[in-house]
Amino acid sequence: MNKPTKTPEKTAKGERKRATSYDVAALAGVSQSAVSRVFQDGASASKAMRERVMAAADKLGYRPNAIARGLITQRSNMVAVVISKLTNLYYPEVLVQLTQRFSERGVRVLLFALERESDTGLVVEQMLQYRVDGVLTAAMFTPEELRTIENAHIPVVFYNRTSKDQLVSSVRCDQEEGERWLVDELVAAGHRSFGIVEGPADSVVSIERKMGALNELAEKGITDVTTVSGDFGYETGRRCFAELVQKHGSPPDAVIAANDVMAIGCIDEAREVFGLAVPGDISIVGFDGVGPARYAAYDVTTVRQPVQRMTESAASMLLERIENPELSPEKRAFSGIPVRGGSARLPAAK
Amino acid sequence: MNKPTKTPEKTAKGERKRATSYDVAALAGVSQSAVSRVFQDGASASKAMRERVMAAADKLGYRPNAIARGLITQRSNMVAVVISKLTNLYYPEVLVQLTQRFSERGVRVLLFALERESDTGLVVEQMLQYRVDGVLTAAMFTPEELRTIENAHIPVVFYNRTSKDQLVSSVRCDQEEGERWLVDELVAAGHRSFGIVEGPADSVVSIERKMGALNELAEKGITDVTTVSGDFGYETGRRCFAELVQKHGSPPDAVIAANDVMAIGCIDEAREVFGLAVPGDISIVGFDGVGPARYAAYDVTTVRQPVQRMTESAASMLLERIENPELSPEKRAFSGIPVRGGSARLPAAK
Repeated sequence: MNKPTKTPEKTAKGERKRATSYDVAALAGVSQSAVSRVFQDGASASKAMRERVMAAADKLGYRPNAIARGLITQRSNMVAVVISKLTNLYYPEVLVQLTQRFSERGVRVLLFALERESDTGLVVEQMLQYRVDGVLTAAMFTPEELRTIENAHIPVVFYNRTSKDQLVSSVRCDQEEGERWLVDELVAAGHRSFGIVEGPADSVVSIERKMGALNELAEKGITDVTTVSGDFGYETGRRCFAELVQKHGSPPDAVIAANDVMAIGCIDEAREVFGLAVPGDISIVGFDGVGPARYAAYDVTTVRQPVQRMTESAASMLLERIENPELSPEKRAFSGIPVRGGSARLPAAK
Repeated sequence: MNKPTKTPEKTAKGERKRATSYDVAALAGVSQSAVSRVFQDGASASKAMRERVMAAADKLGYRPNAIARGLITQRSNMVAVVISKLTNLYYPEVLVQLTQRFSERGVRVLLFALERESDTGLVVEQMLQYRVDGVLTAAMFTPEELRTIENAHIPVVFYNRTSKDQLVSSVRCDQEEGERWLVDELVAAGHRSFGIVEGPADSVVSIERKMGALNELAEKGITDVTTVSGDFGYETGRRCFAELVQKHGSPPDAVIAANDVMAIGCIDEAREVFGLAVPGDISIVGFDGVGPARYAAYDVTTVRQPVQRMTESAASMLLERIENPELSPEKRAFSGIPVRGGSARLPAAK
């Protein structure tokens, strides 16, 4: 028997080669199948054998190759998570929770961060080449992109968005219902003229929120409604408020912003530039329930997304569909949690 | 020649088998090496051949396997990015920027999210089993964990933290320098009693900031210093301010918080509960330069981290070391950018 090399060989390019199970077997003086048994969950190996193999493995820096195992089992144990740029403060929390949920089930997250929500085309090929087992996306794929992913037999779950035309699983917060609550409360408190601050044009979430508010306002017979567009960020919240006042000719009774961060921008602009008291002179509401919405200076009246239940459901739904690809799509909508903050005059809670 | 199946076969378990390059070759009626050439960057293939192969590949949902290619090239083209729970609002921006920088170089991010910074032990084995090419970490590994990663010949770059005892590459914001600037300005403006709000005990960043402030205060001959501990979050900022006043017997002249979010908590508590004017009665400063620090109600005096330069450097340093493992470790410290916000009385800018 040849004396085994103590450290992994170098390749022609001078890089160190990673140790294989054969190197470990040679150094430990055992069979390769014994090495496999030691590293396989649930397989039998004596304590002495385990110690001998682990000592050799440590010396060589060897560990089982999850990637190679994935090629054999046809499972990479990785899922793609697609987010668009986090102008929206609400996503970091979602991302950490999702990563932790998947991690508990032994699944890793391959992260794709888009500049804009409409940039999905750039990442579809990549995620397929990495053989992800599933895709969880907070950006909307086109029907063509979806077909490409489906053709590769990879289940998809939409996060906080859904598609009426497409058979895709989704978990979301019921945006329309949340907006209905906000509108109903504001109207009940006597507000008659409204400003709406929407988010980026390619955000489905923003469109749903805007339509939810507009439909409910129409339902209530409110016709004095002015709409302006932002990008979910604080600065555009400020700009949008000024634009709203100009377009409307005067400040409206209430402003409905598509997210909390823009609502905060509106509050600052209303107070600092227009000298308005919030909620004395004007009511301003948001959506999401992000951390800064709770800061005492803003205390935003909003609808909080039930992030924990949403991330748990999304991870479970995706993992179920990886296990059982024949499961039919499922759409889950969670009610948001009304937050009666101090940024709006509302009727007393019932 | 057998008529090729049009859709991938099913395995015994009823799962669809992914199409291979052989299936594509059979359906297109070309050789397997022709298929390889079409999918290989820079390899030659006629337009007709390309179209024929792509049509067959589309039909079968085939694409080249980045994972299998990684086994051959010994490159997974994945890097691990380790973050701890994002109580700190500053990380989402970092994470998106890092992911985009790596993506520009064809490298994917495998995300590991820790509950606490000291939970690194849970992820080391995982990242090694997934054969990541490198590790970028915003949590501190123990010397033993680092040795394990080094033994696997995987380069590591610390993000916004460094180790005095260990030879590891790092990119960070110079925390001590930033704190020196804050202390010098506050002292020059006449503040004589100080409160320090530190972050979680296992955060190196918090420790460096606290020590930076304490050392500079000692240097300036200031002895009236009270310290309390939070967790980087808004709520503990509020609690810490109350604790500080109690411990000190009265509000100090100035409060130095280990991050902006806790500074915002201190400002709200000072105003709402103690009826103090900020900065009329008390100056409160933070660190990081996160979005909410710019909100008009707070306008926090702080030190902004140069996130774009830091993420660019971190990604480049890691990729260089993946290319050339013999490169010696390098430590880069970037100066933070002083932000003279309205939350502190400072001498006029020179």
